[in-house]
Amino acid sequence: MRVDGKAYRTIWVAADGRTVEIIDQTRLPHEFVIARLTTLQEAATAIRDMWVRGAPLIGATAAYGVALAMAADPSDRSLAEAYDVLFATRPTAVNLRWALDEMSAVLAPVAEAERAAAAYAAAARICDQDVAICSAIGDHGLALIRDAWETRRKPKPVNILTHCNAGWLATVDWGTALAPIYKAHDAGIPVHVWADETRPRNQGASLTAWELGRHGVPHTVVVDNVGGHLMQHGLVDLCIVGTDRTTATGDVCNKIGTYLKALAAHDNGVPFYVALPSPTVDWTVADGVAEIPIEQRDPREVSHMTGRTDAGAIATVDLLPAGSEAANYAFDVTPARLVTGLITEKGVCAASREGLAGLFPDLAA
Amino acid sequence: MRVDGKAYRTIWVAADGRTVEIIDQTRLPHEFVIARLTTLQEAATAIRDMWVRGAPLIGATAAYGVALAMAADPSDRSLAEAYDVLFATRPTAVNLRWALDEMSAVLAPVAEAERAAAAYAAAARICDQDVAICSAIGDHGLALIRDAWETRRKPKPVNILTHCNAGWLATVDWGTALAPIYKAHDAGIPVHVWADETRPRNQGASLTAWELGRHGVPHTVVVDNVGGHLMQHGLVDLCIVGTDRTTATGDVCNKIGTYLKALAAHDNGVPFYVALPSPTVDWTVADGVAEIPIEQRDPREVSHMTGRTDAGAIATVDLLPAGSEAANYAFDVTPARLVTGLITEKGVCAASREGLAGLFPDLAA
Repeated sequence: MRVDGKAYRTIWVAADGRTVEIIDQTRLPHEFVIARLTTLQEAATAIRDMWVRGAPLIGATAAYGVALAMAADPSDRSLAEAYDVLFATRPTAVNLRWALDEMSAVLAPVAEAERAAAAYAAAARICDQDVAICSAIGDHGLALIRDAWETRRKPKPVNILTHCNAGWLATVDWGTALAPIYKAHDAGIPVHVWADETRPRNQGASLTAWELGRHGVPHTVVVDNVGGHLMQHGLVDLCIVGTDRTTATGDVCNKIGTYLKALAAHDNGVPFYVALPSPTVDWTVADGVAEIPIEQRDPREVSHMTGRTDAGAIATVDLLPAGSEAANYAFDVTPARLVTGLITEKGVCAASREGLAGLFPDLAA
Repeated sequence: MRVDGKAYRTIWVAADGRTVEIIDQTRLPHEFVIARLTTLQEAATAIRDMWVRGAPLIGATAAYGVALAMAADPSDRSLAEAYDVLFATRPTAVNLRWALDEMSAVLAPVAEAERAAAAYAAAARICDQDVAICSAIGDHGLALIRDAWETRRKPKPVNILTHCNAGWLATVDWGTALAPIYKAHDAGIPVHVWADETRPRNQGASLTAWELGRHGVPHTVVVDNVGGHLMQHGLVDLCIVGTDRTTATGDVCNKIGTYLKALAAHDNGVPFYVALPSPTVDWTVADGVAEIPIEQRDPREVSHMTGRTDAGAIATVDLLPAGSEAANYAFDVTPARLVTGLITEKGVCAASREGLAGLFPDLAA
């Protein structure tokens, strides 16, 4: 998407054909810094220290990490080492393992002299596949927004509430939940986004607001407490969120607080959509609330907050009184009964076993 | 309640019999500072600059502000001036006007020579009345907590979720929503409080956590997004919140985000109680969502956050990217259908016209 008028992806190969460039997302929203990755170790650091985040982008960065390793040393030993080093950065990330397995399978049969070129080509393919999936999600979601615009509130902007960041910064381009919004904006449909702040890591107030702003999409940041009030007063036409993991029955595991917004949408008759690439469906899980373990992260993410002082410096402040503890549950599960529909690269379906099976009969079998 | 072992109210007269002392709440949670008010103007500043906050405490501070004015100059002109100066500090605060009217009514017929003493006595009476109301709310709520402890989860602690700060810091002592919790803790019932952070002003993470911690009540701060997940997993036995304004039909206007917690409680069969002194009932309003205008406050409360740096300094940081706007809705309305009961100084009743009329037949008529 665009940053101050120029089109960007979140990862690309520099003009030298070898260096990999990324947006250092730890510096957002206050600084737009492009980081150059020239070695396997730098790629590993970028993933581990969250210069890049979001499952698809982690996978893409790992693929380019393998390519950087092959450019330096195309041996089998080097390929195995690259796998291990990159896998250790975020071992629970499903896309990371998938991308590394894909790269290994492609490169193993290739002669050493050809491996670097093959690796860059394979990494580029992984990126292009992700862009195609997100673009398709955007097209299918665009139809929902167009419908909201044409049949209900024209000529007022369509008000869309989103939670956390499921935008292009989490993918290679377009995003998942934000893809339909970019497609609508680019198609000339007036949209306005309510961006939930998304405590504790504030991905909405920082990343979602940043990327919408850079692309020129009208938006307003609200604290996570506000969505219910907005929906009570007709100020939200539809909700679109992303998901980290979706069950075979349509339960949605996403950033903590998603469930509360789904409850409010349901209570007020506001459509609640979840955008997802089909690889995030876990076909082995039936009951999301009962079966999905919820990660607890460092309480410091709750107790401390980082921002820019009036003097322009980046500072971190502690919000809690001495002696008070915090707990930091990272995700929650929204039961399928609260989800209006799933927006996938194959189309929109009901959040149910039947709905998913209709679009993905082979996977659901 | 206790601060490091010593009992405090939020406002009291110093040993000299004239100076009024308060806790400077703008310094919490990082510093416990007692401020001395010696003049009408200092009392006005304390209210206007929110050294004190919470409707009952604002009223009590205004009453003592009149007393300070009478100590300096007991004339009719001085009494009228005190009324005007204090009323201008927070003109929309209902308790402020009530306390000033009460002080004027008491003092007008009193001879000048007696006015200072009468004013201090009247202010003390206003404080004691508030303490009695909050204590009674605590006793009635204690019965609910005792019931939860004895009949459902004994010997595990009773887990109570609260939102914002409706504690003793908002009143003269005990608080409203927190009064039952202090009573239960003091009675030896094991309680644990989930304190919602309460963005954007963080009254939960700062004030509620601070006062619970100082009194020794076990508690954990969570971001506002977490409550639904906790309730899905049986980690909340009951919710108790305060209210700024309750309709004659039991709709509850309270800090933004209360509605979302009530939805989650309802979805998971968790009792959701609202604690209130009867003067916060607005007998003229029937439909809270439709009729109560919701204040929008300074967006800077959303975009900026204040805390303590690792170096110990107090700093304010901006969280938003340049160019992004924030909206700051301060309250929302929870429909009566989501409220299990209202805890008042007269007892617990259904959140309905009938329930309120049963406890307050004269007011409801």
